[in-house]
Amino acid sequence: MLGARCLLRALRSCSSAPCPRHTPSAKLSVRDALGAQNTSGERVKVQGWIRSVRSQKEVLFLHINDGSSLESLQVVADSSFDSKELAFGSSVEVQGQLVKSPSKRQNVELKAEKIEVVGNCDAKAFPFKYKERHPLEYLRQYPHLRCRTNVLGSILRVRSEATAAIHSFFKDSGFVHIHTPIITSNDCEGAGELFQVEPSSKVKVPEENFFNVPAFLTVSGQLHLEVMSGAFTQVFTFGPTFRAENSQSRRHLAEFYMVEAEISFVESLQDLMQWGVDLHTEHEKFLVKHCGNIPVFVVNYPLALKPFYMRDNEDGPQHTVAAVDLLVPGVGELFGGSLREERYHFLEQRLARSGLTEAYQWYLDLRRFGSVPHGGFGMGFERYLQCILGIDNIKDVIPFPRFTHSCLL
Amino acid sequence: MLGARCLLRALRSCSSAPCPRHTPSAKLSVRDALGAQNTSGERVKVQGWIRSVRSQKEVLFLHINDGSSLESLQVVADSSFDSKELAFGSSVEVQGQLVKSPSKRQNVELKAEKIEVVGNCDAKAFPFKYKERHPLEYLRQYPHLRCRTNVLGSILRVRSEATAAIHSFFKDSGFVHIHTPIITSNDCEGAGELFQVEPSSKVKVPEENFFNVPAFLTVSGQLHLEVMSGAFTQVFTFGPTFRAENSQSRRHLAEFYMVEAEISFVESLQDLMQWGVDLHTEHEKFLVKHCGNIPVFVVNYPLALKPFYMRDNEDGPQHTVAAVDLLVPGVGELFGGSLREERYHFLEQRLARSGLTEAYQWYLDLRRFGSVPHGGFGMGFERYLQCILGIDNIKDVIPFPRFTHSCLL
Repeated sequence: MLGARCLLRALRSCSSAPCPRHTPSAKLSVRDALGAQNTSGERVKVQGWIRSVRSQKEVLFLHINDGSSLESLQVVADSSFDSKELAFGSSVEVQGQLVKSPSKRQNVELKAEKIEVVGNCDAKAFPFKYKERHPLEYLRQYPHLRCRTNVLGSILRVRSEATAAIHSFFKDSGFVHIHTPIITSNDCEGAGELFQVEPSSKVKVPEENFFNVPAFLTVSGQLHLEVMSGAFTQVFTFGPTFRAENSQSRRHLAEFYMVEAEISFVESLQDLMQWGVDLHTEHEKFLVKHCGNIPVFVVNYPLALKPFYMRDNEDGPQHTVAAVDLLVPGVGELFGGSLREERYHFLEQRLARSGLTEAYQWYLDLRRFGSVPHGGFGMGFERYLQCILGIDNIKDVIPFPRFTHSCLL
Repeated sequence: MLGARCLLRALRSCSSAPCPRHTPSAKLSVRDALGAQNTSGERVKVQGWIRSVRSQKEVLFLHINDGSSLESLQVVADSSFDSKELAFGSSVEVQGQLVKSPSKRQNVELKAEKIEVVGNCDAKAFPFKYKERHPLEYLRQYPHLRCRTNVLGSILRVRSEATAAIHSFFKDSGFVHIHTPIITSNDCEGAGELFQVEPSSKVKVPEENFFNVPAFLTVSGQLHLEVMSGAFTQVFTFGPTFRAENSQSRRHLAEFYMVEAEISFVESLQDLMQWGVDLHTEHEKFLVKHCGNIPVFVVNYPLALKPFYMRDNEDGPQHTVAAVDLLVPGVGELFGGSLREERYHFLEQRLARSGLTEAYQWYLDLRRFGSVPHGGFGMGFERYLQCILGIDNIKDVIPFPRFTHSCLL
């Protein structure tokens, strides 16, 4: 459990410095092996899964992947090592010398001195076949195995990097991260597309609800972020949100991730939209290139169409609220944001009209005690990934997709 | 929405560099103002909430806080600025000159030239009183306002920093981050303390379950991480987990956060426990100091007491599994980990004995296709925060606590 202590230490110092490791021998990840500078016969150990096997008269070539990179490490072995067990999908440990490769395909290769099969792969039952390119629809049937393919492996590595980048970006911009609740008694959007939460039938809670009130899975952390923006000025959350939408479309999930931010002391949509750097042509080009068309900002929606919390523009007969959406061709709404109604009496009237005054007394409270103009936005993380990766179906950019009629694993 | 574009840009480059901002004037956070080097009369604008007011004959002192730090910024104003509206809890915008403070209590102070009240605070209704120290139990009644107090503000800032540090730590150690699912059809622990998920009664889904199968809120991301460790070798998740436990204790929540990691190619608990740096006396001292006693590692639990996935030690009559828990005085179990049963036939028998073979066919699959010895651990994030912060009740280290009979907001 010293890993735990190492973690404790890193947390205490809030440092991002990597922990030094005690490794009994020079155990290398495939990524580190591929990037090794010292290829003058350094002795190393590499562990991973066999991606390809090529047997020649006197030489055996294996490609080993351990998920640390898309690229595999070429292992070159004497043909005496050849065995049935060295097959596509098997896990192996290879010890040998890291040497400069004579081929132009790779810089380094591993000259094997010892090859140990750690776990066999039942090739007949394994749903992925050697050298075959399986369509994404086919891979989706195997959520427990598809991460071993090049395409899903790459997507999930990008997802991991993007997750880290989002945390870094907001931290470096002075935002406080908030874990907004998953279970909530709010029904924020007023829509009927909520999941309800109750103890499973096996749990005995006498008489009443577990929480005393009906409880739902969150559809947005916005209202809770507004609570926090009244204390920290700049806050964000990055977590799961839910819709019980009866849709099997290629851009909807029942469980998906949202990045949401809320900023106090902003007074116009312009404040919200000029937060950050200016829009550069490269951004547009990037989006154009990846989406085949241009993204569109839509601002100032009719008040009647939007939820109670959006700020009244008081603009006469058209009567709009200060909302903005970023629509991206192919993916649809990527960002949605608005100024929130910070004026007590405006909000009070909107809530009364919807019969929500009692339920949202706490939300009105935020306007009684040092209210400030504020606004924020949310970004659908999977749609963002679809957009930058050019992936057509949202089910392929999340590790375990949940949607109508499907909750595998 | 250029914030969105700024974010898109940061994500594309996976850079953690802060975005430059366009600010119309020198708008400063309280934290930046307090740390300012240039105090020779620089003109700035600061926005925040009034934490204290002290009115003297010719001078008015305000302390302004915006959540960027525990410390507030002292504003010094001519007494002509004095007004009833400048009260505890009100939000204000102050413009003036940042100057060196003559007092030893702070380095800098803001000499006000303009003070604007942004939002009043209804002092009679505001549950927190000026200069009063409210107990944590009292604050808990106001989940929408308590973040504005010094104590909750500090706790939540530490929580935010710890969250960022965990992401950095694992990223720098080569781990891939995985969003394990919240809604799952697994019943991992086999316990009855699960929350079930169904569309709220307003949603019409004809006949069957929304997902076709009973769906629950996750109690652990472990099994899903094991899927991923079979592709990426080192993976982690950091997200919400749930227990429908009928407990109001000071160390249980219905919704709490777990940091979980899974590592392939580890072959003994020692491999798992020597992962990372060695245990230093400073770690123990730290824990001793904060917990009043020493932490205890407990290893090798009886097989009969533990779930099917823990690795059989095959150690004769005592018959244990390779499990380890870290118990911390005052907080209880902080970490729990184990080696997982990677041997097909052992696992098959354990599942058969529990009547789970069919439900966990996918889990058995992981042992048919290139199985590797692996193990991992989970840390309760709130308990960790309790431990380092010395906070007695778990409800005070999470923004919106959920427990039996309580789901406020």
